[in-house]
Amino acid sequence: MTDAADRQAIDETHDARRTSWVPGADGHPDFPVQNLPYGIFSPQDGAARAGVAIGDQILDLAAVAAMLPPDVVPACGGNRLNALFALPRALRVTLRRRLSDLLSDEQYRAAVEPALHPADDCELHLPAMIGDYTDFYVGIHHATNVGTLFRPDNPLLPNYKHVPIGYHGRASSIRPSGVPVVRPVGQHKAPDAAEPAFGPSQRLDYELELGVWIGAGNALGTTIPIASAADHIAGFCLLNDWSARDFQAWEYQPLGPFLAKNFQTTISPWVVTAEALAPFRCAQPARPAGDPRPLPYLWDEVDQAGGALALELEVSLLTGAMRAAGLAPHRLSRGPASNMYWTVAQMVAHHASGGCNLNPGDLLGTGTISAPDREGFGSLLEITRGGSDPVALPNGETRRFVEDGDEILLSARARKDGYAQIGFGSCRAVVLPAVGG
Amino acid sequence: MTDAADRQAIDETHDARRTSWVPGADGHPDFPVQNLPYGIFSPQDGAARAGVAIGDQILDLAAVAAMLPPDVVPACGGNRLNALFALPRALRVTLRRRLSDLLSDEQYRAAVEPALHPADDCELHLPAMIGDYTDFYVGIHHATNVGTLFRPDNPLLPNYKHVPIGYHGRASSIRPSGVPVVRPVGQHKAPDAAEPAFGPSQRLDYELELGVWIGAGNALGTTIPIASAADHIAGFCLLNDWSARDFQAWEYQPLGPFLAKNFQTTISPWVVTAEALAPFRCAQPARPAGDPRPLPYLWDEVDQAGGALALELEVSLLTGAMRAAGLAPHRLSRGPASNMYWTVAQMVAHHASGGCNLNPGDLLGTGTISAPDREGFGSLLEITRGGSDPVALPNGETRRFVEDGDEILLSARARKDGYAQIGFGSCRAVVLPAVGG
Repeated sequence: MTDAADRQAIDETHDARRTSWVPGADGHPDFPVQNLPYGIFSPQDGAARAGVAIGDQILDLAAVAAMLPPDVVPACGGNRLNALFALPRALRVTLRRRLSDLLSDEQYRAAVEPALHPADDCELHLPAMIGDYTDFYVGIHHATNVGTLFRPDNPLLPNYKHVPIGYHGRASSIRPSGVPVVRPVGQHKAPDAAEPAFGPSQRLDYELELGVWIGAGNALGTTIPIASAADHIAGFCLLNDWSARDFQAWEYQPLGPFLAKNFQTTISPWVVTAEALAPFRCAQPARPAGDPRPLPYLWDEVDQAGGALALELEVSLLTGAMRAAGLAPHRLSRGPASNMYWTVAQMVAHHASGGCNLNPGDLLGTGTISAPDREGFGSLLEITRGGSDPVALPNGETRRFVEDGDEILLSARARKDGYAQIGFGSCRAVVLPAVGG
Repeated sequence: MTDAADRQAIDETHDARRTSWVPGADGHPDFPVQNLPYGIFSPQDGAARAGVAIGDQILDLAAVAAMLPPDVVPACGGNRLNALFALPRALRVTLRRRLSDLLSDEQYRAAVEPALHPADDCELHLPAMIGDYTDFYVGIHHATNVGTLFRPDNPLLPNYKHVPIGYHGRASSIRPSGVPVVRPVGQHKAPDAAEPAFGPSQRLDYELELGVWIGAGNALGTTIPIASAADHIAGFCLLNDWSARDFQAWEYQPLGPFLAKNFQTTISPWVVTAEALAPFRCAQPARPAGDPRPLPYLWDEVDQAGGALALELEVSLLTGAMRAAGLAPHRLSRGPASNMYWTVAQMVAHHASGGCNLNPGDLLGTGTISAPDREGFGSLLEITRGGSDPVALPNGETRRFVEDGDEILLSARARKDGYAQIGFGSCRAVVLPAVGG
């Protein structure tokens, strides 16, 4: 398939006039027929398998294999999406186009409808075997806000505008939306304490991030040029990088966060594909005058012109008392995903620039995405200024950090005139008391 | 099996009078019948499989499955040792005892000898699917030496003697001994340069470490108490944490090393089991007077009395010119593994203390193990004082850092009166020029 045909196939699947015969799909806030995210689900009493979200239903991919392009069928089997992520972009586009037709055109309804499962009856799993997880730090307002708290004289370090700062995270403790988070215990030392202590975190926080699923990888010792980096991105999810701020402050020097971040990471289980987000790409915000021009291996005009994502991100909180009173979650923040100093293509190109091999199913986090103003801060550390300025909730409660029984909910929606809105689905987890705490 | 029977079975397999019918095994510097490390190998034109090193031969485990304890046979199949690592300690001891008998007693020779392959004809692979790799920093003399270079006024940070400092590393780029390392390219900025540059590392270094293979893991949200941490350790290897010092200095703040360390990590492919090393456990060196007593979750009298390893570690260098002249590698350093401030049990207990789940086949690095004196420094950064004091080699060459064509060789040997010496085998890799460099 040529690039031009690729683009046309993507455009047709985005046509806002395209409707689905699946009841409730048209106008669904997250999963109209224009989205078609992939995931791994198990129906009641059934084995885990690959599926596509459509409205409030899930299409079982293996059950419609006979109607899919033969080249993609092997990648749609099994209980992990790694092989699907690794498909060449042209095949991913072909599969998307076919799924769009199957779910739009009434002529396929009789054959396809038996392969649908109500999402409410299904369990969702991690979409892929995550070989390695890397977390970046590209939210410049977050970096500035946190830097101000930890290093008032020197909030943004000299390397920030030259290097997409990142570090390796823990893959084993990544869990899908809905799995509760047990409050971690650990070492912490208050600045005025004589000795460290060990106990449940007193400064448990969330971090609002996007996750990036790697598609085709690169061999060890080779690189991924910035101009082709976008081809290595299979899709996106929401990511909550749970953080124990008290542990972090005590342990992070000189080698970075460790136990403060590895007790659990929550992701949304649906993989919103790069193809689904194609209409919502936008120009990377212009660098402020005086900012350095990135080195050539990080600079690509096409990426600058369309490598950012027009997504609106939100964080909400539902406390135990709010839940008991039947109240709705309270929005803590809202802001655009464009508050990233580096694009995801720059993250990928930088990661592989020294020869490190990326693999299909690797996960990258963007780092916390904050807006410049408090209404768009992506963590409680920033919203409450390190706990000194509590948030007042509508029911009279206040929060400095996350308390037991609190549920944190992240959401992402893409909107653009002339296009159907698409979303990322649920990324939520409730905090349970520490074991023995 | 009772603990007492366990210990007896381990002791008998260590009897220095025990000999093997395998020619060359008795007195082998690494692999006499008292060692019996596991690995994954492929014979010429054969598939990868599990094996045991004995002298200069490799025993194919699957080929002698009929003679092994039935409970362990499933874990000995396949091309990864993860299931073998996960076996309960009692079964690991039973397997070791049986293998020791099979390779010692002449009555088994006719049946077992056909399952031997000359090691020189075999390829060795990574022994396990490494889910997550974590690198610690427990070599206190290394931490002090490096701290002095980076922070002369504050070499050892206040948390060092309270927290076993660690951080997550890259699993995908770990390779077995023998795989060449391509010199990485990357961003670096000399302190006196106005802007960063991008190119081949000018300060490529090795780091001498031990690797620790995790056996039985823990579930997310649970911990591994210090008293049982040793039961979660399947074995050990050598680990060279290749490091680009110029990239590291520029990128590591505030979140730790990233591209400076993830381009490749070399490990020795044989897993020297915790059971094989049992006679070589020794007391953890006493903490200097005035050092803080660790928090209770890190403190166990049994671990302090026998949780350290009496191993002698060495690093050697073979330059391209030395190789061409037929010279032997030149030893750069030698020192004991007991220069670790924290034991491996403390590393494991700390890692899981916040609920992070470890899995069979996870790999921990100790961090660079340096002795207090220059003869025992575990990296060129320390030996050459950041490149300012070059090493003179016997053939007239000098080295500040690792050059193209250089091969770095690590070794570890356990010796104790009354016991046969055992070793870790080869951990070596040659450095190739940067791509396009």
